[in-house]
Amino acid sequence: MSFETVSTNKAFGGVQGVYRHASSATGTPMTFSVYVPPHEDGAKLPVLWYLSGLTCTHANVTEKGEYRRACAEAGVIFVAPDTSPRGEGVIDVPDYDFGQGAGFYVDATQAPWSEHFHMRSYLEDELPALLAAEFPMADMGRQGITGHSMGGHGALTIGLRNPERFRSVSAFAPIVAPAQVPWGQKALGGYLGDDPAAWRTHDAVALIEDGARLPELLVDQGDADNFLAEQLRPQLLADACAAAGIPLTLRLQPGYDHSYYFVSTFLAEHVAWHAARLKA
Amino acid sequence: MSFETVSTNKAFGGVQGVYRHASSATGTPMTFSVYVPPHEDGAKLPVLWYLSGLTCTHANVTEKGEYRRACAEAGVIFVAPDTSPRGEGVIDVPDYDFGQGAGFYVDATQAPWSEHFHMRSYLEDELPALLAAEFPMADMGRQGITGHSMGGHGALTIGLRNPERFRSVSAFAPIVAPAQVPWGQKALGGYLGDDPAAWRTHDAVALIEDGARLPELLVDQGDADNFLAEQLRPQLLADACAAAGIPLTLRLQPGYDHSYYFVSTFLAEHVAWHAARLKA
Repeated sequence: MSFETVSTNKAFGGVQGVYRHASSATGTPMTFSVYVPPHEDGAKLPVLWYLSGLTCTHANVTEKGEYRRACAEAGVIFVAPDTSPRGEGVIDVPDYDFGQGAGFYVDATQAPWSEHFHMRSYLEDELPALLAAEFPMADMGRQGITGHSMGGHGALTIGLRNPERFRSVSAFAPIVAPAQVPWGQKALGGYLGDDPAAWRTHDAVALIEDGARLPELLVDQGDADNFLAEQLRPQLLADACAAAGIPLTLRLQPGYDHSYYFVSTFLAEHVAWHAARLKA
Repeated sequence: MSFETVSTNKAFGGVQGVYRHASSATGTPMTFSVYVPPHEDGAKLPVLWYLSGLTCTHANVTEKGEYRRACAEAGVIFVAPDTSPRGEGVIDVPDYDFGQGAGFYVDATQAPWSEHFHMRSYLEDELPALLAAEFPMADMGRQGITGHSMGGHGALTIGLRNPERFRSVSAFAPIVAPAQVPWGQKALGGYLGDDPAAWRTHDAVALIEDGARLPELLVDQGDADNFLAEQLRPQLLADACAAAGIPLTLRLQPGYDHSYYFVSTFLAEHVAWHAARLKA
């Protein structure tokens, strides 16, 4: 196995695929999904990355995200990676918020996690290179990124660290300041060690405080989200963006929770928002 | 438990709920989902029933069907029942195409299935009465029905037997003539006994041959569906409709398979098709 097709299904005129490959970044097999919308032969299409939240694989958004119609209409490729390395040879704990399914998009420096948990390198280097090689219709000069919860954290931090790669960044109910909330303190401490100075490049608010900039930012957040007050705290992002002069559209959606019923309601709008910025 | 709410989530401005109740028809707890779109207080909304296929519960279409946007736009309630009685006290076999998850929407007459497998009575009598009682915004004078595979069989047969109840009937990759295909011969023989005369009220083609009529019919079928030639055989329905003068729109969708990637691609169109017929 270097790159293999797990499944392909026609959907909304395009192809929803699931693929697996031997990752050198994580030292494990990794699975991801790609939706390629209908397109003319030889066309080059923009790419929207979607990073998933705690406990998820590529499958959650692929099955429940309701993004394909919007991607087909806008001509956008949609890529959904896994959230961590997995498998028998990979260390794990029973916690839902640490270990397998909870990679937090960092390169772990602390044993035993440092053996496989290299999701930053995987997403910043390996997977985009693989995508470019295997999907010739993917225009890697036009990439956007979004994500949900832990994946919103991933989208914001990867977007802030790589402004030359991503033209557009958005998020759903993101963990905006992991260094300041329990989920993030546990994960960043466990993967990166106790010194919070090492956490700042994996914390969207700290990255902005330290000078990272984006042209604009779109964030949707349900106001009935159980994790809002303790883990997500979008006001910290709003304050950091205001201080830095980053135009943030933060939409507090009344009555919506943290589930895929929330994500799927607004994901098509995010696809269209990214598409508008990726079309030029 | 007479009627309890398992979960509710806001989605597309409405509420996706999952409910459970003690069914007198099956003698078991039964779970189903209802999506109620955003609406004015006191409004009465048409109801679209969706019957699921082999191995499914209410959850498959609820998570993967991508119907909520269309239901919100059209103002249609969407109801997704389970496909059989379930649980420890319910007889089962390991087969995916018989027993739990494969009720075939009949009232079984053969022991041991006749104790609990009464999906016909459940869907023709008990669940609509419960819906009317518990969902005051449901206009039971305006009902449509659709379904997938075994659930397409259910939608067609229940629709054909109850033309006064349903204004609109459609199906996705339905088993149109169970008496003539292996899935159906196994199920109808097992639940109803060896005499094929007892099967005719549970076979859409036979019902039409025996005089049942509908004003029109919409069927989508993927031409890359693995079950097309042996189990589904839509031409049998086309022939029966032609002979009976029932206007059938049979759309053979190129490249689509039997999965929810197929259903979700076209379900919004079916919602709109039903809504147009239920709005008057």
